[in-house]
Amino acid sequence: MSSIATASNLLAEQFCSVRQQSELLCGPLTPEDMMVQSCAEASPAKWHLAHTTWFFETFILREFASGYQSYHPDFLWLFNSYYNAVSDQPEKKLRASFSRPSLDDVLAYRRHVDAALERLLREDPSEEVERRTVLGINHEQQHQELLLTDIKHSLWSNPLHPVYSHTQVSFANPGNPIPMQWSKYSGGLVEIGYDGDGFCYDNELPRHRIYLEPFVLGSGLVSCAEYLAFMEDGGYQRPELWLSEGWQTAQSQGWRAPLYWHKENDANEWSVFTLRGNVAFREIENTPVCHVSYFEADAYAHWAGNRLPTESEWEVAASQMSVNGNLLESGALHPAATELSAGLQQMFGDVWEW
Amino acid sequence: MSSIATASNLLAEQFCSVRQQSELLCGPLTPEDMMVQSCAEASPAKWHLAHTTWFFETFILREFASGYQSYHPDFLWLFNSYYNAVSDQPEKKLRASFSRPSLDDVLAYRRHVDAALERLLREDPSEEVERRTVLGINHEQQHQELLLTDIKHSLWSNPLHPVYSHTQVSFANPGNPIPMQWSKYSGGLVEIGYDGDGFCYDNELPRHRIYLEPFVLGSGLVSCAEYLAFMEDGGYQRPELWLSEGWQTAQSQGWRAPLYWHKENDANEWSVFTLRGNVAFREIENTPVCHVSYFEADAYAHWAGNRLPTESEWEVAASQMSVNGNLLESGALHPAATELSAGLQQMFGDVWEW
Amino acid sequence: MSSIATASNLLAEQFCSVRQQSELLCGPLTPEDMMVQSCAEASPAKWHLAHTTWFFETFILREFASGYQSYHPDFLWLFNSYYNAVSDQPEKKLRASFSRPSLDDVLAYRRHVDAALERLLREDPSEEVERRTVLGINHEQQHQELLLTDIKHSLWSNPLHPVYSHTQVSFANPGNPIPMQWSKYSGGLVEIGYDGDGFCYDNELPRHRIYLEPFVLGSGLVSCAEYLAFMEDGGYQRPELWLSEGWQTAQSQGWRAPLYWHKENDANEWSVFTLRGNVAFREIENTPVCHVSYFEADAYAHWAGNRLPTESEWEVAASQMSVNGNLLESGALHPAATELSAGLQQMFGDVWEW
Amino acid sequence: MSSIATASNLLAEQFCSVRQQSELLCGPLTPEDMMVQSCAEASPAKWHLAHTTWFFETFILREFASGYQSYHPDFLWLFNSYYNAVSDQPEKKLRASFSRPSLDDVLAYRRHVDAALERLLREDPSEEVERRTVLGINHEQQHQELLLTDIKHSLWSNPLHPVYSHTQVSFANPGNPIPMQWSKYSGGLVEIGYDGDGFCYDNELPRHRIYLEPFVLGSGLVSCAEYLAFMEDGGYQRPELWLSEGWQTAQSQGWRAPLYWHKENDANEWSVFTLRGNVAFREIENTPVCHVSYFEADAYAHWAGNRLPTESEWEVAASQMSVNGNLLESGALHPAATELSAGLQQMFGDVWEW
Repeated sequence: MSSIATASNLLAEQFCSVRQQSELLCGPLTPEDMMVQSCAEASPAKWHLAHTTWFFETFILREFASGYQSYHPDFLWLFNSYYNAVSDQPEKKLRASFSRPSLDDVLAYRRHVDAALERLLREDPSEEVERRTVLGINHEQQHQELLLTDIKHSLWSNPLHPVYSHTQVSFANPGNPIPMQWSKYSGGLVEIGYDGDGFCYDNELPRHRIYLEPFVLGSGLVSCAEYLAFMEDGGYQRPELWLSEGWQTAQSQGWRAPLYWHKENDANEWSVFTLRGNVAFREIENTPVCHVSYFEADAYAHWAGNRLPTESEWEVAASQMSVNGNLLESGALHPAATELSAGLQQMFGDVWEW
Repeated sequence: MSSIATASNLLAEQFCSVRQQSELLCGPLTPEDMMVQSCAEASPAKWHLAHTTWFFETFILREFASGYQSYHPDFLWLFNSYYNAVSDQPEKKLRASFSRPSLDDVLAYRRHVDAALERLLREDPSEEVERRTVLGINHEQQHQELLLTDIKHSLWSNPLHPVYSHTQVSFANPGNPIPMQWSKYSGGLVEIGYDGDGFCYDNELPRHRIYLEPFVLGSGLVSCAEYLAFMEDGGYQRPELWLSEGWQTAQSQGWRAPLYWHKENDANEWSVFTLRGNVAFREIENTPVCHVSYFEADAYAHWAGNRLPTESEWEVAASQMSVNGNLLESGALHPAATELSAGLQQMFGDVWEW
Repeated sequence: MSSIATASNLLAEQFCSVRQQSELLCGPLTPEDMMVQSCAEASPAKWHLAHTTWFFETFILREFASGYQSYHPDFLWLFNSYYNAVSDQPEKKLRASFSRPSLDDVLAYRRHVDAALERLLREDPSEEVERRTVLGINHEQQHQELLLTDIKHSLWSNPLHPVYSHTQVSFANPGNPIPMQWSKYSGGLVEIGYDGDGFCYDNELPRHRIYLEPFVLGSGLVSCAEYLAFMEDGGYQRPELWLSEGWQTAQSQGWRAPLYWHKENDANEWSVFTLRGNVAFREIENTPVCHVSYFEADAYAHWAGNRLPTESEWEVAASQMSVNGNLLESGALHPAATELSAGLQQMFGDVWEW
Repeated sequence: MSSIATASNLLAEQFCSVRQQSELLCGPLTPEDMMVQSCAEASPAKWHLAHTTWFFETFILREFASGYQSYHPDFLWLFNSYYNAVSDQPEKKLRASFSRPSLDDVLAYRRHVDAALERLLREDPSEEVERRTVLGINHEQQHQELLLTDIKHSLWSNPLHPVYSHTQVSFANPGNPIPMQWSKYSGGLVEIGYDGDGFCYDNELPRHRIYLEPFVLGSGLVSCAEYLAFMEDGGYQRPELWLSEGWQTAQSQGWRAPLYWHKENDANEWSVFTLRGNVAFREIENTPVCHVSYFEADAYAHWAGNRLPTESEWEVAASQMSVNGNLLESGALHPAATELSAGLQQMFGDVWEW
């Protein structure tokens, strides 16, 4: 077997693995769960499964797989998200009405497209097919992030607050909170943007030079307990801590705490909704606060006497580290507590900018 | 067996029959279909099945069935619609997020409640239990109307326009349109409101006297073809035909035809969406126009040189007829064409005021 | 001088008097005040002055006054409200941008139209001119009601709460509240609708017979103190007192008291905004509550164990009385307290249905 | 007289001059014009006059002028815009209801504050008073930009399209369009941010170093004729030219041309509303297009094969030029056509980023 075929076989295996991952993430869900679109920004889980499939069918199979028979003529426009050049598309809010095609039908659609694409990949594919497959894989991984985010919101919207995962996890270190340490960076004339020869998104290019003043980064993430101190110091009532647009948004939306923080009945203590259901605050107080908006993060930083890092500062620091962290594979499905450590940590996984 | 027990047995049988009917109406639907809430006024089919069950559990079993164990403690408030005296209730729009309880769970809820209520009815029930059971049966029949209306809208909202029923039906008489005839009524001092000793809704009471001037009623319903003539005569562009509020509503909502009328692609002919899918206009042109608002009906009547009957006029005429018509039992699921006849017809079934 | 000329002269004098009244009502206002449109339902005072003039110009002068020169070619559509048959018209909310024409220009427009119409009326006018003049006079009187209502709301919207009238008025009888008495009516077959040969609005016709059951009417209007008792008994928190649509409206709009009732700073006592500025509650507690919606009035009536009268019941009772009351001419600009009296009172003036 | 006194006298004169300028800009307006708030982003002209006065009173006179008597106790909060630390403030949309205080009253408020501040400035003021006066002057100049922008929109909103200025101006060069030339910049490590010792806004600090790749800038501004070419090439119908959020905004708002471009009646040619009223397109086709959003400018640049400059690129180029241009003092009140020139021009005045 030639080395090219081997590379394609690896790609085929990666393709199958990522495709399988999407369905595994939906494992705890019923077909009914996968219908829910709980806010305008979200999509039903079933739609994610169909749309990622549509991507491979539309941009690879329809163009490059000779003799390919599309699964259903209407799916070309039905599962288009916003690629105006391909076709018109249904209004986003209509996705909640897609009881048909059924989940079984969408899974059969996946089988159909997966088989055809795997065949194409194993038969000496063109470079363009490989390039687009890698793009499609990354596209699907992006949607896996959305999947979990949208699932969490849909379960939260159900007044019964169903639990996604019943596996046990130890949310936090048993000891005391870790005091913030600071990592120093000299800045100077640096390069940012992708510089490898593999895949990257278009907004990671072009590689270019920028100048950074020296800066420091906190060694870990802000914990729920630290954020609660901000709240208890009037964080949500003090306009001087907020950006003007942030303050207006917080007022008009009635923000009083991060999304998913609530007080059950008349309890005094906060409870936080997670993919493992509601968790008492004391159990996760040392884990990073998450699902806060940019405005909330900025107000917190002001309150703490700091500022948020710029994207460039973050990238420079992150590019010097290996990609390790509490990623999807950890199965935690929640950010982990910062560890006592000499240096920067938690740059990958745990919490991503939204 | 005493005659009282016999009456209760009849009631138990009627109860079972109506309960079964609701589930039969959902027969063509998948659990996913039964999740869809396609507009703010509608509810998912699964919610209708649960809420009608909640009614029997809340107002009969919890109060009158000694030792009754409720199916689920949260269902008391989860499936409350707007009975503020019973409990708080979830916002209506949240009903689309009720993937849990599942359809299977809701059906088990129905089994649980049905068994308990049937047992209660067969064991010499009190008059109040009987009275409330009759009320619950009528409540459920009302929701059966809503069910079909909401299902139709949910299927229409799906861009694929799925078909509810594949059985064939002959929509219209093959011959020519039936010219409108007029039935005369002398009016005078008449009584309206319910005057039997069976069930009626509270807004059908009290029986009271009113005076009506002599009036005439059209013998049948306005057909799609007649309504199209109104449209082709500029009906939707002529403010003088409309009530002021109707005109504003029509303009702001962009009304150009009845709901469910559309032109496929670039076709010249109208197509009408029904529970049997899209139907070409010529096939149903002699059937009554339906799903028009009060404002559209009023504008049509003005255009035709007539006016809509008052509720009292309608009731006086209807009360002199036996309740026959194209009701749910006909299986037509669509209004039938007017027949050549010497007198008033179609006062029951076919089209109801919305 | 012929008798016809005399009748016309009387009409001309009435015309001049009503036209003058509109301007007198604007007397306390500055040109700037007359720009304010404080809610979507209201119009600026200047617009009322122009629109009522437009009515006479459009429907009488342009059609019947030979050689009439219109004041400004654009005013035909600029000051049209919703007479679609005459012309297009600007969106209602744009009226707040009509700084031009200036108030001076609008007053000159009034002079121009008044002179032309008075000339027409004094020169043996046709019956149709007289008929339309009477209609225009009534139209202007309707707008005088709107004027005062809109002015009140505009002054209320200004955070400084300016005062419209500084003249003193004694709002209430000094003594104790008058207990409600009841006037009895036998009902039966009665006629309603206008039956004179003078002016009436189209919705006052045709005169027709209806049947009324015997009924009683409260002798006077509900006072602020009585309404406060309803509030203090949880009136705005008890859904069972409200119509379903009323309850939803009250909740979504946050109603807690009638419009114009407020508590200044941290005061415990209510204050009520009137055309004479803010008035302490105790000063007006015996005057009729006003500016309550139909829903609030209905909830109050339920709470008090009564119901609102129907329009027909009101008309039958009112038609037996002479038109006397606390009308515009009294100068009170606020409803007066009920007086100790043997029979029905306050059927005209004081409070009108909105 | 000491040199310090002289500096303060100069500041006093500058203060008086800028204060006078605001009132001069309102010269063509009536008190009624100065009430109009034609969209949520705008404020009435009268409010601008009062608010800029409030700034001097609140931050200088109340704090530093011993014995200063405030003009009106309520003005402290009434004319606050969004300085939450000073006081609560009225909702922005209420500004259209401020018929009181009258324009005369607001002008008297200006006289009162101007006199007190001039006195303070001429009496050996503290450095802090001088610093805040300079800030207040710049604040007022910012509001002068808003004034003209808001006035233009308010006149445009009036269906009569009143003219602000009747003075004649030659909008464009008579000759042919000037072809775009390109100015080259070497980039490198540069400093941006204010580096003088006079006034600057807080967002112009701190002075800091950045790195720029070499870049070129177009020598002049994009003309209306060039923009029309974009439109005629389907610019508003081609999603591929737009940022995703821009496309959505353009679709949802129905953008088809820049604000103030319209076609009168059924004319084929565009007409553009200016502070001198409607102008035929051919008269201004060589002047810069203005009142386009960032999204429109970006789509145009894409279409033309270019990109918009970054703020840093613009600042580096502009900082090398003297501040000359078609500024307020020119009296043109509209951007002027680009001139045939060897280098960069129109960096000041003409069009500013909004």
